[in-house]
Amino acid sequence: MKVTTPTLLLDKQKALKNIQRMVEKASNSGVRLRPHFKTHQSAQVGEWFRAVGIDSITVSSVKMARYFANNGWNNILIAFPANILEMESINALASEINLHLVAVNIETVEALAAELTQPVRIWLKVDTGYGRTGILPHAHTDLDAILDVIQQCENIWFEGFLTHDGHTYKETEKDAIQSIHNTSLFLLHLLRDRYIDAFPELKLSYGDTPSCSVLEDLSGVDEIRPGNFVFYDLTQQHIGSCTYSDIAVCMACPVVAKHPERNEIILYGGSVHFSKDVLLQEDGTPCYGRVVTLTENGWSGPMDGIEVVSLSQEHGIVRASEELFEKYKIGDVMGVLPVHSCLTADLMKGYLTTEGDVLEHLSGKALHV
Amino acid sequence: MKVTTPTLLLDKQKALKNIQRMVEKASNSGVRLRPHFKTHQSAQVGEWFRAVGIDSITVSSVKMARYFANNGWNNILIAFPANILEMESINALASEINLHLVAVNIETVEALAAELTQPVRIWLKVDTGYGRTGILPHAHTDLDAILDVIQQCENIWFEGFLTHDGHTYKETEKDAIQSIHNTSLFLLHLLRDRYIDAFPELKLSYGDTPSCSVLEDLSGVDEIRPGNFVFYDLTQQHIGSCTYSDIAVCMACPVVAKHPERNEIILYGGSVHFSKDVLLQEDGTPCYGRVVTLTENGWSGPMDGIEVVSLSQEHGIVRASEELFEKYKIGDVMGVLPVHSCLTADLMKGYLTTEGDVLEHLSGKALHV
Repeated sequence: MKVTTPTLLLDKQKALKNIQRMVEKASNSGVRLRPHFKTHQSAQVGEWFRAVGIDSITVSSVKMARYFANNGWNNILIAFPANILEMESINALASEINLHLVAVNIETVEALAAELTQPVRIWLKVDTGYGRTGILPHAHTDLDAILDVIQQCENIWFEGFLTHDGHTYKETEKDAIQSIHNTSLFLLHLLRDRYIDAFPELKLSYGDTPSCSVLEDLSGVDEIRPGNFVFYDLTQQHIGSCTYSDIAVCMACPVVAKHPERNEIILYGGSVHFSKDVLLQEDGTPCYGRVVTLTENGWSGPMDGIEVVSLSQEHGIVRASEELFEKYKIGDVMGVLPVHSCLTADLMKGYLTTEGDVLEHLSGKALHV
Repeated sequence: MKVTTPTLLLDKQKALKNIQRMVEKASNSGVRLRPHFKTHQSAQVGEWFRAVGIDSITVSSVKMARYFANNGWNNILIAFPANILEMESINALASEINLHLVAVNIETVEALAAELTQPVRIWLKVDTGYGRTGILPHAHTDLDAILDVIQQCENIWFEGFLTHDGHTYKETEKDAIQSIHNTSLFLLHLLRDRYIDAFPELKLSYGDTPSCSVLEDLSGVDEIRPGNFVFYDLTQQHIGSCTYSDIAVCMACPVVAKHPERNEIILYGGSVHFSKDVLLQEDGTPCYGRVVTLTENGWSGPMDGIEVVSLSQEHGIVRASEELFEKYKIGDVMGVLPVHSCLTADLMKGYLTTEGDVLEHLSGKALHV
């Protein structure tokens, strides 16, 4: 298929390898892999997971849960504080599948207890250091009160404690990520010890792509929920989660203008395609994408001396060495590894595999309103 | 209509006032208003412009041109360096409407000359100081060579010189914006003087929302092309292009969690809804949105002591004063003025007007691939 507008290429073989590697690591660590599907949001990519035995997944919205339920997934965790305004959709989903919700506040659990007409499983989200959302692990009074409400409600089953260590994204050293991981395990185990008598089946759920990629041993919890690893991106390469050659998605963008006076190339491909996520380099300069050579069946590693230095709505600005500047002509298609594959995929609304297949993305399927 | 998930509200009366104000300014300045439709990308919002006499529009992609052509627009400028990989679509459009393209390099013009089967109008984009893309105004040799190619080609009509002063977005003083404007006019007039004998009908096209909003007199060019003014946003308010009460769009986001230990409220509304565009405040802290009170028919001005301080994929983090923190409950819907309405609208894929109508956005209509 000929690329004429910004297109998100997907190397299926790389994605399959990324999936296989995580499946093996989970198996070796004795934990269940409940992959986060917010990165790909694609029914077809979901099938690649099913083919290697995955039967339980994570999503980040009721809408995404509905999409994957419609595509045959029966055990779905919505890893986002339950939105009680969507009770109708939540009850509908819970009547069809094994639905797992997350709560952080007692008000949420009380609203669920009052309005659920179907049984769901509840995870309490614990903030083990990220500081975005979650119950503090020493907030025993709050935890006791929430668990009291849960125990009174027939339709809510307490599944366990869940955490997301998003602060691993700021690290580039394995030791630091190991330390974050160890801290989370320590805190989760304290909670398990405190509540195991009242809830003998309580589970622990952990996971972010940096920890799950960088660390070898993920034992000590019941399940892990990495998501980005299916595609990876420049942010993960910078952290150390993957190599450049593991990155399974690549933007293909037409060259539309050239500025020889400053060796800058203008791409059709801007913030409505890539997103505005940026990677700050060692010298403090921003990078919005690394340039690769597109080949018949994929792409090369990133080239030195050429990168995307700025994005506006539809324009990408590439600064190049004199030699690389000369190499690209107007009408060429340039390959660019994205900084944050989740956001790029969400904006691009679909994929073109290097084998020529078009795959869907949920965001290309329906209106938000 | 009840809001249960992140929704982009649109106050039609505010948008109509913004449109009317710009129509009057263009009329008083004796210039044609060719509004940029990339901000709203909505057939229905387009009709509000048509109702006040607008018949020529600007877009930023062939796809957007096709969408508005299908919705009855007959004079469309694609204000983006012509993408010669889309020749087939360009020829199809040019056979139906009065199509205006932009070129920056001779290679583009040569490719158009070779492959156009229909007449189009070409604007040469001049870089009058922004530094993103455009021919430098003193590059006479390049300009002469491009115009030679144009003169040889039956299907290309030279329409004139066009500029976009995106560097006004970095200013907050009227004097600075006036100075940028005067410089551009000076440079455009030099070009007109140089080429008017060879092209007696050549026109000048200018425009960005800051200049067109802040300055009273826009005479000296033939047309202006502001776009963002239809909605405005926090960025434009910061520049001085509008007041808070002119901002015609507002995100409505469910409150899903609360953290009393740090007075933070978690919204269902993240970077896949707002985009990651940020407004740096005087003290250097980032602002991703200002909080307003939603009313029956709209919203209040922004409140002090509460704002969106961080965004991740689906989460927005609001930091509030103790008093405002207490005011919001889980399950409430919070109003947030967006930093960059163009990107927010593109992500939200549609609007809910304060009168209860659902309006479409091009990005909710089709796949990119």
